[in-house]
This record gives sequence, C-alpha cells and structure tokens, in this order.
Amino acid sequence: MTNLVKQSLKMFLDELASSSPAPGGGSVAALSGALGAALSSMVCNLTSGKQGYEAVQEEITEKLEKSEELRKDLTKLIDRDTEAFNEVMNAIKMPKETEDQKEHRRNALQIAFKCAAEVPLETARKCIQVLEIARIVAEKGNKNSISDAAVSALMAQTGVQAAMLNVRINLNSIKDTKYVQQVSTELHDLLQNAMEKSAEILGIVEKNL
Amino acid sequence: MTNLVKQSLKMFLDELASSSPAPGGGSVAALSGALGAALSSMVCNLTSGKQGYEAVQEEITEKLEKSEELRKDLTKLIDRDTEAFNEVMNAIKMPKETEDQKEHRRNALQIAFKCAAEVPLETARKCIQVLEIARIVAEKGNKNSISDAAVSALMAQTGVQAAMLNVRINLNSIKDTKYVQQVSTELHDLLQNAMEKSAEILGIVEKNL
Repeated sequence: MTNLVKQSLKMFLDELASSSPAPGGGSVAALSGALGAALSSMVCNLTSGKQGYEAVQEEITEKLEKSEELRKDLTKLIDRDTEAFNEVMNAIKMPKETEDQKEHRRNALQIAFKCAAEVPLETARKCIQVLEIARIVAEKGNKNSISDAAVSALMAQTGVQAAMLNVRINLNSIKDTKYVQQVSTELHDLLQNAMEKSAEILGIVEKNL
Repeated sequence: MTNLVKQSLKMFLDELASSSPAPGGGSVAALSGALGAALSSMVCNLTSGKQGYEAVQEEITEKLEKSEELRKDLTKLIDRDTEAFNEVMNAIKMPKETEDQKEHRRNALQIAFKCAAEVPLETARKCIQVLEIARIVAEKGNKNSISDAAVSALMAQTGVQAAMLNVRINLNSIKDTKYVQQVSTELHDLLQNAMEKSAEILGIVEKNL
C-alpha cells in the first residue's frame, strides 16, 4: 500500500517529478480536489461563530461537516490512484507464454484498467460535491475570505478536468464498450456541471472582491 | 520563518482547513504551480533516453532543467505567501494610540500589502513559464504521458487564476494608484496569456489522447 499523503510536500513533489510514472496526474487530480475541500472548510471555520454570520451558522456547520468528509475521501484517492496505476503495471508484467497465461493476463489487465478508470471517476464526482459547497461558502461565508472560496472552486474544477483526462486515458484500453459508453456519458455531464458551477462561483466572487 | 513544505501532505491539508487564515489561497496557488512544474519534469524524465525521442533529447533536457528550476521557485513561494500574509497581520496589530504610531502603522501596512501582492504576482509569472514548458512537453514528450502533460498545464493555469485573485484582494488595500494600475495591467495580460496557452495545450492533447 502506498502512503503518499504521509510524505512531506517537498518529497511528494520530488517523487512526482521523478522518472517513475506514479504518482502522476491522477493523484494530482485528487490532491487538487482535497485542496479545494480544505479551502472551503477553512472559510467555514472562519465564518462559524463570527459576528454578522449568525443567520448562516447552522448551514455553515453542516457544510463544514460535508466538506471535511470530502477532504478525507479525496485525500484517500491520492493514494488509491497511484495504487490503481501500479496494478495496471503489475498486470502488464504477468507471464504471456502459454494461451492460458495470455488469457489470464488479458482478464487481469481489463480488471486493472477498469479500476484505474473508476478511481479518477470517483475523484471527479467528489470534486463536483466540493463545488456545491464552495458555492454556498462564496455566497454566505466570511467576506474577508472570499478569494479563498474562489480558489476552492478553482481547485475543485481543475480536479474534475484532470480526473477526466485520467479516466479517458484508461477507457482507451477497456474493451467493454457498454461500460466505456456509460462512463463517457457520465464524464461529459460531470465536466459540464463543473464548468458551470465554477463559472457561477467566480461570478459571485467577482461581485464581492 | 514558516516551513510548510516540510509538513506532510496530510498535515498541510489539515492546517489549510483549520480556522487559521494562513496558509490560504495564495499558498495553494503556488503549490498548484509547483505540481504543474513537477508533472512537466516527470514527462521530460519519461521522454529522455527513450527510443523514438532521440531527435528531441537536447530540447527535453533543457526544458527539464528549466522546469526543475521553476518547481524550486514555486515551492519557495508556498511558504513566502504565508509569510507575506503574516506580515500584514503583524502590521495590523501595531499600536495606534499616538499620531506617530498611527503613521508608522499606516506605512508598515502599505509595505506589507505590497509584499502580499508581489508574492502571488511572482507565482503567476512563474506559472506562465510552466505553461511554456508544458506546451513543448505535450507536443514533443512521451506520448504515453500525454495526460500528465495536460494536467501539468491545468495546474499551472489554475496557479495563475488563483494567484491573480490573491493579488487583487491585496491591491484593494494599496493606496499607491500608479502601482495598482501597473499591476492590474500585468495581471490582465498574465491571465489572458495563461488561458490562451492552456487552451492550446489541451487542444494538442485532445488530438493525441
């Protein structure tokens, strides 16, 4: 099991830049989402209990809880993406001398590619939920932290875009056409949803900056 | 001196989410750029010495060197942004009983706000340079890592957008109108440049994904 999130920021960046293909863009997508969730949590924390924000206290407390849950999930996805990539690499290295071995390897590869597509797909879904929170935070949270609400939205939007690319690159290797079609449709909707939500949040921030 | 980059990813996310306003969006902007630079470096490392990429070897080696330099600079900006924010907080807390103290505090605040604007401005400038490298990497780097080149561009573009918001929020408090005008013009150009470069890179990736 990998444990990237226990590494220092500096070490993570070093490992990312290295000639090892993992961690790569998929883990960065999840990290981008986790950073977005963390910033929404921060704005909730800077709003809660502050004068002038009594009317939104309950809603903000609820959003903070959800945002912290998403942060936890997205933090796990940083490691899970690298693990899923490593599983593909392991399947590629399986023996392929006999017909039996070849079929065994083919099946293992298809399972590994599906898993490597599912992880960033889950990242994209979680990032959309971060955007939903960032919208409330930008609208009702502490006005002094409005730029942080905007950066939260930007990181979550980028999380969706980056995750989508990582789903698509894995879909290229999946032979189950029904699955590929279904995931492609979901991806299309997720991306459109993310871009709309993010533009709306940046519009709210623009009025208040 | 802060040393955020020596913290684990998990601890950094915890501190970001906490009720302390620093680190905030400015440090995240620099981290986004550093992640972008790291991914471009990775694609360079996965291209260098590989069969079929002999013709671009020299150019890729040169880009790797530049990209690693930018990664180092952007990593430093993660801490510098939080330091600059803390300087503003320190200036706010200065005594303001006598006229002398008031003037002293006003001057210190103006200096602190300029510094807090300069740091994300520098982040934005460095992120543009990351985009320049990501473009070459997407065009000429290892085709197996094309989605990583795209994520590199997305992170650098987001770095510019996030940094820009953090410059603007500090400009609001700066009384030197000539400075504000000059920085605003540069910001406008940087953002336009970033969006154009990023769109171009995603177009290259789209053709090859």
